[in-house]
Amino acid sequence: MGSFQGHTLPGSLFLLAGIWWTGKYSLWHATRRNKSLGSTRFASRTSQRRVEILESSLVLFLSFVGMVCEQFAANGPKLHLYDFAEKHWEQLHIWQHTTMYLFFSLAAIVSLIIHTTEAAPVALDRLMLAIAFFNEGFLFLYHLHGRAMLDVHVHQLLLYAVFGGGLVSFLEVFHRGNIILELLRCTLTILQGTWFWEIGFVLYPPSGTEWNLTDHNTMMFVTMCYSWHLTIAMLVVGVLYCTVSCVVRSRLKRTPPMEMGLLKPREHDAESEDEVF
Amino acid sequence: MGSFQGHTLPGSLFLLAGIWWTGKYSLWHATRRNKSLGSTRFASRTSQRRVEILESSLVLFLSFVGMVCEQFAANGPKLHLYDFAEKHWEQLHIWQHTTMYLFFSLAAIVSLIIHTTEAAPVALDRLMLAIAFFNEGFLFLYHLHGRAMLDVHVHQLLLYAVFGGGLVSFLEVFHRGNIILELLRCTLTILQGTWFWEIGFVLYPPSGTEWNLTDHNTMMFVTMCYSWHLTIAMLVVGVLYCTVSCVVRSRLKRTPPMEMGLLKPREHDAESEDEVF
Amino acid sequence: MGSFQGHTLPGSLFLLAGIWWTGKYSLWHATRRNKSLGSTRFASRTSQRRVEILESSLVLFLSFVGMVCEQFAANGPKLHLYDFAEKHWEQLHIWQHTTMYLFFSLAAIVSLIIHTTEAAPVALDRLMLAIAFFNEGFLFLYHLHGRAMLDVHVHQLLLYAVFGGGLVSFLEVFHRGNIILELLRCTLTILQGTWFWEIGFVLYPPSGTEWNLTDHNTMMFVTMCYSWHLTIAMLVVGVLYCTVSCVVRSRLKRTPPMEMGLLKPREHDAESEDEVF
Amino acid sequence: MGSFQGHTLPGSLFLLAGIWWTGKYSLWHATRRNKSLGSTRFASRTSQRRVEILESSLVLFLSFVGMVCEQFAANGPKLHLYDFAEKHWEQLHIWQHTTMYLFFSLAAIVSLIIHTTEAAPVALDRLMLAIAFFNEGFLFLYHLHGRAMLDVHVHQLLLYAVFGGGLVSFLEVFHRGNIILELLRCTLTILQGTWFWEIGFVLYPPSGTEWNLTDHNTMMFVTMCYSWHLTIAMLVVGVLYCTVSCVVRSRLKRTPPMEMGLLKPREHDAESEDEVF
Repeated sequence: MGSFQGHTLPGSLFLLAGIWWTGKYSLWHATRRNKSLGSTRFASRTSQRRVEILESSLVLFLSFVGMVCEQFAANGPKLHLYDFAEKHWEQLHIWQHTTMYLFFSLAAIVSLIIHTTEAAPVALDRLMLAIAFFNEGFLFLYHLHGRAMLDVHVHQLLLYAVFGGGLVSFLEVFHRGNIILELLRCTLTILQGTWFWEIGFVLYPPSGTEWNLTDHNTMMFVTMCYSWHLTIAMLVVGVLYCTVSCVVRSRLKRTPPMEMGLLKPREHDAESEDEVF
Repeated sequence: MGSFQGHTLPGSLFLLAGIWWTGKYSLWHATRRNKSLGSTRFASRTSQRRVEILESSLVLFLSFVGMVCEQFAANGPKLHLYDFAEKHWEQLHIWQHTTMYLFFSLAAIVSLIIHTTEAAPVALDRLMLAIAFFNEGFLFLYHLHGRAMLDVHVHQLLLYAVFGGGLVSFLEVFHRGNIILELLRCTLTILQGTWFWEIGFVLYPPSGTEWNLTDHNTMMFVTMCYSWHLTIAMLVVGVLYCTVSCVVRSRLKRTPPMEMGLLKPREHDAESEDEVF
Repeated sequence: MGSFQGHTLPGSLFLLAGIWWTGKYSLWHATRRNKSLGSTRFASRTSQRRVEILESSLVLFLSFVGMVCEQFAANGPKLHLYDFAEKHWEQLHIWQHTTMYLFFSLAAIVSLIIHTTEAAPVALDRLMLAIAFFNEGFLFLYHLHGRAMLDVHVHQLLLYAVFGGGLVSFLEVFHRGNIILELLRCTLTILQGTWFWEIGFVLYPPSGTEWNLTDHNTMMFVTMCYSWHLTIAMLVVGVLYCTVSCVVRSRLKRTPPMEMGLLKPREHDAESEDEVF
Repeated sequence: MGSFQGHTLPGSLFLLAGIWWTGKYSLWHATRRNKSLGSTRFASRTSQRRVEILESSLVLFLSFVGMVCEQFAANGPKLHLYDFAEKHWEQLHIWQHTTMYLFFSLAAIVSLIIHTTEAAPVALDRLMLAIAFFNEGFLFLYHLHGRAMLDVHVHQLLLYAVFGGGLVSFLEVFHRGNIILELLRCTLTILQGTWFWEIGFVLYPPSGTEWNLTDHNTMMFVTMCYSWHLTIAMLVVGVLYCTVSCVVRSRLKRTPPMEMGLLKPREHDAESEDEVF
């Protein structure tokens, strides 16, 4: 990437994705927990499907824009891969970013197919997401050869969030709808987003004062900083989850559902919920 | 292996195996999903078993041919392992390939026994497949000492597909019949096949223009190329799966089954399917 | 840390936590096994919840005290992170310890929220505990650069207990209430505690006779010593578990429960218990 | 160990353990599969428990003998750990072996307690076995510093079998009675046994002709040899399993059970068996 904007742009996208997912899964979980209060008004099966389709379309659109921008920007490779005249590869870094976008767009396409038709098993969207994350981490892993120590280190820390997200997505193939795994994935995605920003600030400081890229103490500080980012990500997810839960509950209490006859005792419902997770 | 053909031959075999498996599992999955439409005509229990026996026999035959060819080819070791006169090992590379074939033939024998008799638990065939993949990866792992950087790198990338295939097979011991795992294994097998071809083209280019085996940019390109191979493998599996599903469905609609009285509502069937996976 | 007390203090805390947990889980397991004998007198749902709240409050209090002490001790950084005058980081080691305490206090807060309200799924407390352990191990991992061989080695051995504890906690998210995993976590926590003491004795011997930090034989002895600590931890957990089981059983026999009519045959109960675990 | 006998003795013990386990689990599995034919005559619950107690007692006895022999042999450390006069550790290798025996004896003691009383959950015996294997591998891992390349390599290969056995035992905590995992554990134990013999022959050849410990080709041969040992182990387990199955079935057919009225249709039983595994 090699620029401040080159790191903050994907950072912002992952940050937004993490926050959006937290809201979505919190709402759906609150809906499931309060079924007896008629909460399905907020998130019926049909509306859930519609949300998934919208989300996938947006991801597909953004990935496509990302690929086009990377390739046709002022100094982009414009789809040329090898310069036969001077015998060198054309800006492989940009090609790698294009490949990362490609995998996320594939995941979005599969998700679209799953939620518009009934052709494929639904768990496939999590598998594709896991593959997209693993591919991102895999390309970063072989991306770091010959850089300064701190540069390598901040990107290695990023890999924890990336591979963690991939692993959690893969676990969701088998434990779909487990709110704990969903929130963990949200947390790791937000962490990835904020850490991209951190990388931008450390390697390309907009203030101009360069960091010492070889000081061991700076490395130790950066490591600890990663823990703080994780704390912040957990706080953001926690606050969002609680807010959504409270809003859903208070709304339900103000406007009781029509079909009172179908009301099951709330106590029992919450209990079974607890035992499942 | 040390030759272009030495890499493209196993590559073609894995490629064919992956495509064949994709077709087989797609057909069986479509059969299970459309049971109510009388789809069991296409893949009854008995016919499934017959297919498995045929497949295992073919694998056994090919492994055996492979072992014999490797050993008794013009410059093969002809079952000699150690040259006591000159005190050196006889072509260990070929012996290693023989060992890899041996494990796949063992997996085929076990699969034959399982599907002809009822002596052993069926999940054993996946365990044997996992062991065959792990053994292949294990031998490759200790195979690479003292080669050029790019040579080592392309073989290491191969290991991701090999060990990935082994791990997925092992998971299938516990989640047998999970279409997502089955398709993932198909994808990784096709990836392994196409990557064997890629290795052949990179290390022994038939066009004659040698690749620079120590350029770091070439390594980065090759890494990215691996992601593209994975994309292609996923596309192949996806297209095949959809084609088979559509064909099964359209056939079922044209020729409704005899026993209409046994028809269960299709809606419910698809639903439960979705929840399982 | 850099001092004898700096290692024995956390060691004592983990040791106490491990012993406390062993007692708690043994009591609850004995209660579940002997339900038919009216054992719920000892640990009803309400009392269990009260114990969890007390435990979480204590952990929160101790973590908070730990953070304050580390920061405002005689030579602490007093919340200063960077000395802009002399351009160096302020005692990063102490900041790292503060971060570790922070994660355990977060886990305690989440546990408090879970057990006082019903806002969140209960399994979240194990996830937070797992994250706290992983964070501790993660900070230790990047903590060891440039130290003597034995110093690095004893801390690496500590990581087995730390990451092991994190992994077992994560497994408990999916297998909550599995007594085997619970006792394993207790064992690893006690091991961590006693090993902190060992590190204190090896690196800062109170007797004054320094250990040879670069002798390979000493390293081998220390490795073996780790196994012995594990043995002792297993013995402590085993003896505690048996004692609690026996006390619960003997008490139950002396004072039979009131509601004899609800008595289910004990045999059957123990049997089902055995099959679950 | 440092001698031919020092490797072949544990090798023989593991070999015998693996063969014994194969027979035991094969018999019990055949018993479960043929319940309808009255097979419980061969292995009733009571007799199974008696076998477990006998096995555990034998393991305990052998471990104890092993510990005593290692310590009090001609050149053993006789329970001395540190020579304060000359300031060096007393034969740490022998102490390490004593520690390994100690963990297996602990596993045996726990197994005895579980099968004589009902104090502890039964899955604990697999956990203790897993810990014993992990401890063995852990001590070997830090055992190899400063040896010749081939010496390190053959011991590293051993670790695959040791850690593999530990991992499979740990999985059995959650999947108890899964015949596939049980046979896999048997295979890995037999592999460990035969590989100990191989190490003895390679490092201390009784014929006197020394192996070249630094030749890369020898290393590649040894790696391949490991695969062949695995093949042999799988063959032994396979043949034993089939033999036991056949003997049980033929015996059942000759002497039909008394209580014909309790006969359930065999077909159905085998079916459910297949679905479980």
